[in-house]
Parts: sequence; C-alpha cells; structure tokens
Amino acid sequence: SDNLEIVVRAFSHSFVIPEFRSFCDDIDKIYHQCKNNQNGQTTQYIPQLANKNPKFWAVSMCTVDGQRYSVGDVKESFTIQSCSKPLTYAIACAENGPEKMHQYIGFEPSGRFFNELCLDYKNKPHNPMINSGAILTAALIKPTLSAADRFDYILEMYKRLAGSEYLGFNNSVFLSEKECADRNFALAYFMRENKCFPPGTKLQETLEFYFQLCSLEITAESGAVMAATLANGGINPLTGDPVLTCEAVRNTLTLMHSCGMYNYSGQFAFKVGLPAKSGVSGCILLVVPNTVGFCLWSPPLDANGNSVRGVEFCSELVNLFKFHHFDNLRGNTSTKIDP
Amino acid sequence: SDNLEIVVRAFSHSFVIPEFRSFCDDIDKIYHQCKNNQNGQTTQYIPQLANKNPKFWAVSMCTVDGQRYSVGDVKESFTIQSCSKPLTYAIACAENGPEKMHQYIGFEPSGRFFNELCLDYKNKPHNPMINSGAILTAALIKPTLSAADRFDYILEMYKRLAGSEYLGFNNSVFLSEKECADRNFALAYFMRENKCFPPGTKLQETLEFYFQLCSLEITAESGAVMAATLANGGINPLTGDPVLTCEAVRNTLTLMHSCGMYNYSGQFAFKVGLPAKSGVSGCILLVVPNTVGFCLWSPPLDANGNSVRGVEFCSELVNLFKFHHFDNLRGNTSTKIDP
Amino acid sequence: SDNLEIVVRAFSHSFVIPEFRSFCDDIDKIYHQCKNNQNGQTTQYIPQLANKNPKFWAVSMCTVDGQRYSVGDVKESFTIQSCSKPLTYAIACAENGPEKMHQYIGFEPSGRFFNELCLDYKNKPHNPMINSGAILTAALIKPTLSAADRFDYILEMYKRLAGSEYLGFNNSVFLSEKECADRNFALAYFMRENKCFPPGTKLQETLEFYFQLCSLEITAESGAVMAATLANGGINPLTGDPVLTCEAVRNTLTLMHSCGMYNYSGQFAFKVGLPAKSGVSGCILLVVPNTVGFCLWSPPLDANGNSVRGVEFCSELVNLFKFHHFDNLRGNTSTKIDP
Amino acid sequence: SDNLEIVVRAFSHSFVIPEFRSFCDDIDKIYHQCKNNQNGQTTQYIPQLANKNPKFWAVSMCTVDGQRYSVGDVKESFTIQSCSKPLTYAIACAENGPEKMHQYIGFEPSGRFFNELCLDYKNKPHNPMINSGAILTAALIKPTLSAADRFDYILEMYKRLAGSEYLGFNNSVFLSEKECADRNFALAYFMRENKCFPPGTKLQETLEFYFQLCSLEITAESGAVMAATLANGGINPLTGDPVLTCEAVRNTLTLMHSCGMYNYSGQFAFKVGLPAKSGVSGCILLVVPNTVGFCLWSPPLDANGNSVRGVEFCSELVNLFKFHHFDNLRGNTSTKIDP
Repeated sequence: SDNLEIVVRAFSHSFVIPEFRSFCDDIDKIYHQCKNNQNGQTTQYIPQLANKNPKFWAVSMCTVDGQRYSVGDVKESFTIQSCSKPLTYAIACAENGPEKMHQYIGFEPSGRFFNELCLDYKNKPHNPMINSGAILTAALIKPTLSAADRFDYILEMYKRLAGSEYLGFNNSVFLSEKECADRNFALAYFMRENKCFPPGTKLQETLEFYFQLCSLEITAESGAVMAATLANGGINPLTGDPVLTCEAVRNTLTLMHSCGMYNYSGQFAFKVGLPAKSGVSGCILLVVPNTVGFCLWSPPLDANGNSVRGVEFCSELVNLFKFHHFDNLRGNTSTKIDP
Repeated sequence: SDNLEIVVRAFSHSFVIPEFRSFCDDIDKIYHQCKNNQNGQTTQYIPQLANKNPKFWAVSMCTVDGQRYSVGDVKESFTIQSCSKPLTYAIACAENGPEKMHQYIGFEPSGRFFNELCLDYKNKPHNPMINSGAILTAALIKPTLSAADRFDYILEMYKRLAGSEYLGFNNSVFLSEKECADRNFALAYFMRENKCFPPGTKLQETLEFYFQLCSLEITAESGAVMAATLANGGINPLTGDPVLTCEAVRNTLTLMHSCGMYNYSGQFAFKVGLPAKSGVSGCILLVVPNTVGFCLWSPPLDANGNSVRGVEFCSELVNLFKFHHFDNLRGNTSTKIDP
Repeated sequence: SDNLEIVVRAFSHSFVIPEFRSFCDDIDKIYHQCKNNQNGQTTQYIPQLANKNPKFWAVSMCTVDGQRYSVGDVKESFTIQSCSKPLTYAIACAENGPEKMHQYIGFEPSGRFFNELCLDYKNKPHNPMINSGAILTAALIKPTLSAADRFDYILEMYKRLAGSEYLGFNNSVFLSEKECADRNFALAYFMRENKCFPPGTKLQETLEFYFQLCSLEITAESGAVMAATLANGGINPLTGDPVLTCEAVRNTLTLMHSCGMYNYSGQFAFKVGLPAKSGVSGCILLVVPNTVGFCLWSPPLDANGNSVRGVEFCSELVNLFKFHHFDNLRGNTSTKIDP
Repeated sequence: SDNLEIVVRAFSHSFVIPEFRSFCDDIDKIYHQCKNNQNGQTTQYIPQLANKNPKFWAVSMCTVDGQRYSVGDVKESFTIQSCSKPLTYAIACAENGPEKMHQYIGFEPSGRFFNELCLDYKNKPHNPMINSGAILTAALIKPTLSAADRFDYILEMYKRLAGSEYLGFNNSVFLSEKECADRNFALAYFMRENKCFPPGTKLQETLEFYFQLCSLEITAESGAVMAATLANGGINPLTGDPVLTCEAVRNTLTLMHSCGMYNYSGQFAFKVGLPAKSGVSGCILLVVPNTVGFCLWSPPLDANGNSVRGVEFCSELVNLFKFHHFDNLRGNTSTKIDP
C-alpha cells in the first residue's frame, strides 16, 4: 500500500490541483469558519424563500478534471433564482452568437440596483445579469418553439450542464414568483415600450419562461458541476459533453466578473477577482477558470442580496489561494498558496 | 554571425515573447491597418487638444523583460490627460493602502458619463477612473506637503514609472484646463458638500493638483514603459526599480479592467478583456499582465471619447493573440496565437 | 323694437358678461386668427387619433349663467383623452373627499414628462393630472362595483356634467389604447410594487376603466358645458344640477391651474393664469372661474402635446381680457378689457 | 365720541377690510393657537441661524390701504434668506421685462429639492424661487455696475419696498453663507458649464451678490410692508411709491403661488391657495392679492424647510377666511368669512 500511495501521488501531480487532499482540508476550514457567521436574513419577497432555515450552509466543488469535494447541506435542494442568469445567457449565446445577443443587451454594469427601471444610453438593458437583461435573454431562446418545448429544451441544456446531478422544478416557487412580479412586469412593459424586444416576442409567455428559469431546483452538488462546466470552457468535466461553446463561456465569465454580484460586483471584482453569480435563494456559483467550480449555498443575505456566508467564503478563499484574476502578477511576493 | 544568430535565438526563448521579431511584424501590420482609419475627431474642449494633427498615430510597446518596439510618431509629446488616473491611483494606493483609499472612493463602474454629477449609493465617487474619483485620489496624495513639494513628489514618481524616457509638463494645457473646468469645480463642490473629502482638504489646491496631473506630457515611448511597469507588477522592466507595490498594481489593473474606457468599458472588457485606460488627448495605456505594456496614441476620438485608431488596434490585437482575460480557457480550440 | 332693445340691454347687465355680443365678436376674431396657424401634428401613437383631419378647429363656450357661443367644427365628436382627468378627479373627490384622495395621490407638478416612471418623495404619483395619478384616481371610483356598473356610474356623472349635450364612447379608440399601453402597464405595475393602490385594487380592471375614461367622446359644445360646470362651482349652468361639490371643484381647479398643460403647465400658469387641461386628441378645457367655460379642439399638437391652435387661443384671450389669475391687481393700468 | 365712532365706522367701510378690529381679533386668536406648537427645529447649516431662540414668533400685517396690525416678536430682526427670491425677481423683472428674464429661467416647479443639481428640459433653472434660478436672477440685476453699486441699488430698492421700516445687513450671516456654500458653488459651476448665464457674468461676484441678498435683515413689521407692496400691485401702500411694475408683481405672485414653499408648494397651493415664499430663517411672506400682506416669523422649521408655526397660521387663516384663490366660486355655501 505504500507503493500504491506513491503511485497515486505521482499520478495526482497531473491533476490541476495536485495536492487535492490538502486543498480540501483548507476548504473545510473556511467552511467551518463561515458557519459561525450568523448575520443576514433570508429574502422576504416570497414565503417559500423567506421560510428557509437560515442554518443551511453548503459548499460543493468540482475541478475541471472531475475531482469532487462537498461539505454541509449539499444534498438539500433550493431554487436557482438569479444564478440561472449566466447559464441561460451562456446557452442563448451559444445558440445565437454574441453579436445577435448584444444587439438587444448591453455589456455594462448599471451602477444601479439589479431591478432598476432604466435602460442604458443605447436604450438596451445594461447587461444580462440583471432582471431586464435576463428577461430579454429569455426572449432570445428558441422563440419559435411552444412554451412546453421551450421549457423542455432549457431543462435538457441545464441537465447537460449538471451532468447526472440533481435538477428539479419548484412549481410553488414559480407560482409565487408570478404573483410577486410587479417590478418584472413593469420592466417588461417598459422595455416593450422602448422596443427592446425582438419582433414577435410574446410578453406574457417570455415572463413566464423567465420565472420558470428562476424556479429550477439544484443542490450545491449539481450547482458545482455547472460552475465547473464554465470553469472548463463549456465541457462538462464529468461527462465530457461539450455543452457550451468556448466563446459563449468566455463571454459569460466576463459578464459574471463585472456584473454578477448585484451592487457588490465592483467590490467583488476588486477583492475576489473571480467570475461569480449570486441569487436570492442564497446561492453563489463561483468559477476559478481552468481550475474549479464552486457552488455555495446559505439562505441569509446581506444588504446587497448576496449570501453572507457565501461572500465570506469567497474572500477567505482568495486570501488563502492565488485565485484573484491579477494574483499571478510578476513580482508578487505574497505567501498565498497556488494549490 | 550565423553562430551569433543561433545563440541569440536560443537565448531569446527565455523571453516572455520568444518570437519577438515575428510578434513585431504582426504589430506592424495592425499599426498600418489602423492608420487607414480616418474616423473620429479631436476633442474640442480646449484649443491645445483640438488643434492636434489628426494624422498622428503611434504604437509603442515594452515587454516585462524590457524588449522594445515602436512604430509611428512615437517621439511626439502629448498630455497624458485621464491616462494619469490609473497611475496616480496606483501611487496613492501604494502610499495609503487600499483600505484607506476606498474609505473615500468606490469600486464600481458608474453606468453613467465619466463626469456625471453623482455619487454611488454610499455617497462616494463611483471609482478612481472617473473625474470625481480622480480628484479624490489627488486629495489623498501627500496632503500635508506644499503645492510645490506635492508636484515634485508626483513628478518623481512618474519619472520612476517612465524610466529614463520623456516626461514633461505642458503649462498652456494646464492653464486651459483650469479655464474650462466648470464641471470639475461643480463636482468638487458637490463632493465637498457631501463630505467626500478627507478632513483638511484644500479644494482649490486639490483641483489645481488634479489639473497638473492631467497636463503631464509623455511620448508613446515613455507611456509604453509606464504600462510595462504595470504589466510587470510594479517593477520598472528597464530599471528594475520597484516603483509600486504588487497589491497597488493588482488593484489598479482591476479597476482599469472594469472602468478604464469611459462608457465603452463594459464592451471593452467583453471584447478585448485587458486592463486599459484612455484619455482625451487620444492616448491609451494597454496592459497585458506579465507580458507587455502598450502606449497607443492618435488624437481623433470616437463618441465615447476613446482614440478611434487605439480602440481598433486593441480589437485587432486580441483577435490575433490569446490576450483576452478568458482566452486561455481549456477547450479553447481557436487558432489564435500565443506569442 | 327700440324699446325691446333697451329692455334686453338693461336685462343683460345682470349677466356675468354684460356685453355678450361684443365679447362673442372678439372670440370670433381670435378664432379666425388661430385658424391660420398650420403648425403642429396629430399625435401618432394610435391610428384613430393620427388620422384626424388637422383642419378641424372648434371653439365653444358657455357662461356660468348659461349663455352660449360656438364657432367652427363644434358638432364633430372626438375622444376626451386626458381632459377626462380633471373631471374624473372632481367626481372621485366629491365621492371620497380630498383627504382620502390625497392619501394616495400628491399635489405637485412632477417637473417631468406626463408619463414618467417615477413617484414623488412620499412614494405617491405626483398629481391626478398625469397618467399615474389618473390611474390611481380611477381605482378610487366605486371600487366595489362591477366593471359594468362602474362604467355606467361614471357615464351618468359625465352626462350630468354635459347637461343634455353629446356624450359617447369610442370603442375602437378604447381597443387601440389597450393595445398601445405599454407605458401605462409599466406605470401600473410599478405603482402596485410600491403599494400605491388601495387594498383590493384589481390592476387589469382599473387600467381598462382608465382607458374607457379616455375613450369617452364629446363635442366642443358638450365640453364647453363641462368646463362651465367647473366655472360655476360644480352646478351645471344649463340644468341647475349640483353635479359636484364646491370643494371638489376648488381642488380640481387648483390642480388644473398648476398641472393641467403637461410640461407647459408652469409657463401656462405664468402667461395665461387660468385652470385648463389638455388631451392628445387636441382638446383643451379652459375655465374662467365664476365666468365662463371653454372647450377648444384642434388635433395638431405642439411638442408638449398641447393643441397648437388651442394654446394660441388661450394666449390671445388673456392678452385681450383681464382673465389672468392676477390680472385684477390694484394699480393695474393695462388697457385690457373686463368683459 | 359716539359720533366719532359712527364717523370712523362709516369711513372704515371704504377700507378693503371694513371690520378691521374684528379681523385683528381673529388674527390674534390664530397667533396664540400657533404659539403652542412646539414642533420643528431651527436650520442647522450655519450657526447664526441654528442658535436662534425657537420661541420667537411674530405675525405682522399691512393692508393695501395701509392698516397695520402686529403681534409677538415683531421688532426682532432676522435675515430674509429665501424670502429675498421673489423680491429680487420682481425687481429684476421690472428692470429687464419678463421676456429677457425667462430666456434664462424657467417657470416650472421642479418636482425636486430646492437645491437639486438639475436643470429643466430646456437646460434652464426650473424657476426663480429655487437656488439655481435665484442665482441667475442675481446675475441679471445691473450686471454692469460695480459690486458696491449693485448692492447699493438693491438695498435702495428693498428700502422702497419696506417703506420706512427696518432694513439691515447681517455680515456674519453673509460670511457664514459663503463658507457653507458648497452646493451653491456646485450649482453655479454646473450652470456655467451648461451656458445658463448671460455672456460676461462673473461667477464669484454673482454668488457673493446672491449671498448678500440672503443676508439682508428685516423685521416682521418691515416684511409685512414688503408683502403688502406685492398685494397692492407694486405700489407701497404706506408711501404710495410705485416700486414695481404691475406686470412684474403679477409674474412674481404667479411663481410664488406655484413654487414658493419648497417641496410643500403643491400642497400649499392646494390647501392655502395664496402666493407665499418661505426662507430657512423661519420667515414667510404671504400675499392676499388686493387685500393684505403678512410677514410670519418663527425659527423652527418642518421637514420641508418651512416655518412650522408659519404654515399652521396660513392654514388656519384660510380655514377661517375666504382667501383661497378659488374660494369665491359661485355656489360656495361654506360659512367662511369674507373680512
């Protein structure tokens, strides 16, 4: 067995994270540190999310070569909410190409709240990571299909992103979303008035499709595979399935990097420097390109609408490891670890 | 001499851009392609800039190991304008540390014009790459020194960034800037009213200091060394002088990446994916981290206030080379060159 | 007959406009002067209004003691559009009292466009003369009745305002309004999100009711009687019917005075100084309190959305007669006529 | 003496308020009622105003035929602050004519705060009753005179408005205003950038002139004479001096009516329906056209910046007397008094 150990270790050096066991130990420590953080509260706008147990806390990861580690409530299901935005955008981008997408949607952080009633200086939604842009993204996915076929198509794509892991649909959340959607209806009508939609867009149907996307259910485990698929340039690291084009992933990561964390996006890009997207269910998808995808989940949110424990986890991760976008600068003499 | 050639070539493989000659040939081709672009016009707000010859077009580069290539009007001097913003921010960040800096200045793109009369949701200027944030940055540099000593200090720092290359001061531009500064005065008073400045800040003096920073003169050649110093983590690649801390450079590149190209920043991050900063004199500092710094200069500007030829150059560069922030994604099968 | 003349003249002096014949001659002159004005164009947002003949021009008046004069296309019917706003407000105000009304609606000009997506600093629509406030006003009218009974009620009230004159309903305009109502839907959802509506308000039904109010048809003649009812403190001068409370009329005239002419309201209050309300069909209701009500109608609109000929008429009227709110100042030595 | 009484009474019936003694008794009752109101607090932005005794409460009135009544601290002096705005506007309007004035200044309530950094849709300050418009008004008064002569001119005009009553200048307030004027400087530079000023305007000098106007000192007694001069169409009722043109007064009253009470203007027009202007010193000038001018003064302000006791006084006055703009509507059966 000593011999086997040596073989494993030798072999392991060809993995993207050679010292995986030690890396997992570090992840574990950060997990437990964040667990003590009792701040924040669950989102209140629909009862299904408001009533989630604030103690839930899960971290799951999947490397680009398929190594897995998970800790906490990683088998609990929750709705994906705004974490669907980058995935749906990536699918739409692979389907339509970025030129067509960005005829309708901008590339800029809005400098304002995620659901602000405003358009950019070209009369487009600012970017696909905010509600207006995500509604438009939904409008650009298979617009000629029936509502049922559209949903089947997107479900199939999300399943490919998640590999064999859990993907469900929470109908009571969907119905609540529809009920509480005054702002989204206002946004949609405002955009239609400004001729933001492609010709022939059915407003009501598009909004329902958008609410369905927000009501898909994942677990931290399946979310991690999705994030890893993005980290891996669009190829699912577990199945080898080329779900998304590399270009679509590049564009998606760029926009997650600049616009993924609501009003905290700029600060997150500054301090963490990694593409991420959060949702009001308390979920964060975090991508370390070419290395690993994380799904973090804990319902209590901070004032910006991001999971309190999730944001703390990201900060600690980047304090410990050289993961920040500009961490590998020449001359960097910090003692951070390159895992 | 055949032998020497072989030695040189062998040796060259240890450079960051091993095939430097071929790389320069490609740069040269892009330079000439952009030269044909006759669009845009010089900024009109002060005569010294309005009257610049629109034919000027210069590209200069400097690698992190000190290799140089320059083409066009690279010895012509011009004022640095807003390209001073990232450099001054980096100096201030190295001096004060980012925590102190960002007590006063945000991290977010504003989603609005660069000189908009507004503050972010925490009543700070949105970021140090727009006028309000740059005025605040100026206020944070050696505030206890006399005006003359402050200017000497910053001049000295800029000289260290530029190595032995040209750095001057254009007094007639400075006087014109002061004359035409209604918006900047409005911004400064608006910020003072909102208690944005550190206690003891002298408004008039700070604004004059800010105008002086904009009126520093460089050439494309000296600008390239400055950009290369950023690419090299703060160590001047020609002199080996550790001008800036690695952390200050990381922060600066992050903000150039998200906020450096006025209202085109989001689109630039999306399409080019490199930290850059432009100024109304037609200058662009472009940083390929750990590789090379560029200074591009051509006076005619597009509607966003960026040099027309400069922006085209950046696009072509990234079309040809794997320089985009997310270009190295696994599974990327594009035929782009890794120089 | 000389004797009769004397009797008539003696009797006429007890009228509010003693020299009515001469007054009518002056009105006639102004009418013909304005007729030459070919500026403006019909509103384009629905075909039924866009296609109206731009030559239509009607002036009708009715004094508070029931004298009538009409010139031009005064028997043509047209939809009342935003001229319904003060009438519906007056009815709602008489029904609910001003305190209840202004729990939900503000009193202020908005300083912005009539359909701007914004609320005042207390999160209410700025006033009942703009779309958001008028939708809320509609919500406050007999909210417990069925849609049919509500419409019957309001129709009955409008008939009492118009006396025996023409009142109709244009169903094709109503259907077009519903089709082109993106902004109104956006406004309504935005207000519901901000909890602007009374509990139990049905959004869809309220909007349809609002569109129905805009689609009521009048003639210049019937509009003049409505305006005269306002001029007469709420008592229809032809029928003697006390349709509205005096307090409701006072409140209505106050808001017409400050907010009735879209973005031109302030200028109109300044130059004309009389309560008025215009609509996109080219209609203006103009009230000279205690004296006379006018209905002016001509489809071509200026950039503010007010009838070009109508606005000119108002200016000329006030240039000739002492009708401005502050025209009767002591020391006023102008040669204006007091009819 | 019985005989004398009869003569006086007979004679008094030719006065605008025939039963003056009874009217004064009513004013007295309202005064004492408002005295109990302990709400509000003095403005905090400069110490000279912050430290005023909150118990000060003065009401002074002057009818258009020169009858006087005063109660409370009517001999105390205080700075006129924003109550100078309508007076300066009236003087400028008489000097330049309204056409020239309104080339530079709008007529509209802004729907925003009185010192908001914004211009109307024609790039003018919204109206002369807010800071930006008042600064522009100052720029339009005798712009070719020296600073000293300009001040002398305006002082002379104010003295004519006040008759022989007190008018002073508070230099320490003036110096404080200059110190704390960040927003006004921001406004002025913002306006200069937008080319709002007439050619040749000296910014610094204009602002100083504006601060001087705010630092003029009056008493409630002298303020009442100024208000009475407006009520009397521009002719000082005590001296008979025709200080202002009737047209200038008409324009001034129109704008006081719509824009005089900060963010409460719309509500004030609705509930009180009289032209008024308030200032942060706690002063209100209230005009009942053709009847009487009031000056109310009490330092504690409400959230809108209006004197708490002053606003209560206005409400009670209009509840008791038929002074509202539309109170004289036919059919008004209210029991309100017509004094």
